Amino acid sequence: MTAVPRGRLIVVGTGPGAPEWMSPEVTALVAEATDLVGYMTYVDLLCDILGPAAAGKTRHTSDNREELDRVRFALDLAAQGRTVALVSSGDPGVFGMAAAVFEILDRDPQPAWRDVDVTIAPGISAMFAAAARAGAPLGHDFCVISLSDNLKPWEVVEARIAAAARADFVIVFYNPASTQRQWQVDRAKALLLEHRAPSTPVVLARNVGRDGEGVRVTTLEALNAADADMRTLVIVGSSQTRTVLRAHSRAGEGPWVYTPRHYPEDRATGEARS
Amino acid sequence: MTAVPRGRLIVVGTGPGAPEWMSPEVTALVAEATDLVGYMTYVDLLCDILGPAAAGKTRHTSDNREELDRVRFALDLAAQGRTVALVSSGDPGVFGMAAAVFEILDRDPQPAWRDVDVTIAPGISAMFAAAARAGAPLGHDFCVISLSDNLKPWEVVEARIAAAARADFVIVFYNPASTQRQWQVDRAKALLLEHRAPSTPVVLARNVGRDGEGVRVTTLEALNAADADMRTLVIVGSSQTRTVLRAHSRAGEGPWVYTPRHYPEDRATGEARS
Repeated sequence: MTAVPRGRLIVVGTGPGAPEWMSPEVTALVAEATDLVGYMTYVDLLCDILGPAAAGKTRHTSDNREELDRVRFALDLAAQGRTVALVSSGDPGVFGMAAAVFEILDRDPQPAWRDVDVTIAPGISAMFAAAARAGAPLGHDFCVISLSDNLKPWEVVEARIAAAARADFVIVFYNPASTQRQWQVDRAKALLLEHRAPSTPVVLARNVGRDGEGVRVTTLEALNAADADMRTLVIVGSSQTRTVLRAHSRAGEGPWVYTPRHYPEDRATGEARS
Repeated sequence: MTAVPRGRLIVVGTGPGAPEWMSPEVTALVAEATDLVGYMTYVDLLCDILGPAAAGKTRHTSDNREELDRVRFALDLAAQGRTVALVSSGDPGVFGMAAAVFEILDRDPQPAWRDVDVTIAPGISAMFAAAARAGAPLGHDFCVISLSDNLKPWEVVEARIAAAARADFVIVFYNPASTQRQWQVDRAKALLLEHRAPSTPVVLARNVGRDGEGVRVTTLEALNAADADMRTLVIVGSSQTRTVLRAHSRAGEGPWVYTPRHYPEDRATGEARS
């Protein structure tokens, strides 16, 4: 007689995409996995990053829109005693697959899943990689907002942008645009300009850590919907965010962008008070 | 004749503290460094994590309060042609040393520093490690606020808490308390309770990835200033954040905490509209 195997579901992220940003934990967890489940682009990226450590796993890839089905499939596989890595991009806890796993476990739990051991592996998020390339725009209080209205009403997005703008947070926008959604960046810009100077530094970071990486520094006034697509992160500075010329600029590099850790006394009233 | 060496300043973080969360990039960059500069606790932690890769470096450690002096010292060393790793905790771009470097380069630049090449290495932040241990509390829009009023007026902190509470963001509090500061958590709690239910899940994460790690789940109502110190991160859920019982709870583990990726239509008005 053998003991009934207890399956594992390991939720991992690819990190931004560069092998040097992949945590040793994810490398080790994926090496133990029997199965990889995820959106094809992310599973392929993970396998590219890990090379031999990801070889010989059964791959189950699907379309990006079937997230909840993918979670159920991964839990079913794990319940059979397999060690399943569910693959997300970036950090799986930030707009990634980790929340989808708990949504299913909460709202539609199946008795067969009871013996599945769940582990979430944190990673370097795309926004921290983008921030590091640009300097230190996230050096002080900041907000992270998804501009997609696929999963939430646009009024909620607007309320959050307005609140973050009034309270002078640096703001990171995920999912600023897609082929189906183009107008959100312009609308966000208009809301931000009600509270923030046209000269506010904006970082546009695309594919950081991957082929075709590009980081560009512009201003809120010059920000344009055409600057962003689904692979772009947009970081909008606070009233305190500044630029510094780089002494040695490589091709295409703009100035450094940073947000000081201190906040001046004379800004404690006015716009910053919401 | 030899070429004048061009020094390097590499700003790295320890990550949360566990070796499996240290990026290969930081390991490689520190291996190349000739000098390590930083607050003693962080330099020691980095050396513990990296072991042999950090051996043989000249260590320059100082008190935590001398951050700007430490930056100047690191830049001076680099300007002599050395490869200097400036060590922060977590991700150096989030309330870390990266912003301090640009503050100095912006406000007090020295001609000798012109040839120093600056690199910021992103890392896994403490909040993502804490979130992964707890489940997926950061699965949807969130704000990150330092509760310290050492570097900003408390009115700015309050305005940000109120704005984040009204717009229904999940909120991560860094620096909730120190031996000198004890009252901020209670004041933040009072502000949050004006907009959020007493039963709102709260994650208290202490020393995640280090000795003595503890992650506890409580509610906003039960949150107490005594729950937090300078090594604690506090994550306060939004109106949508939920808990799910773990089928297999290890000693001391509470329920999973997660924030769904979707936001219900019927919450698009009222509290969420600021």
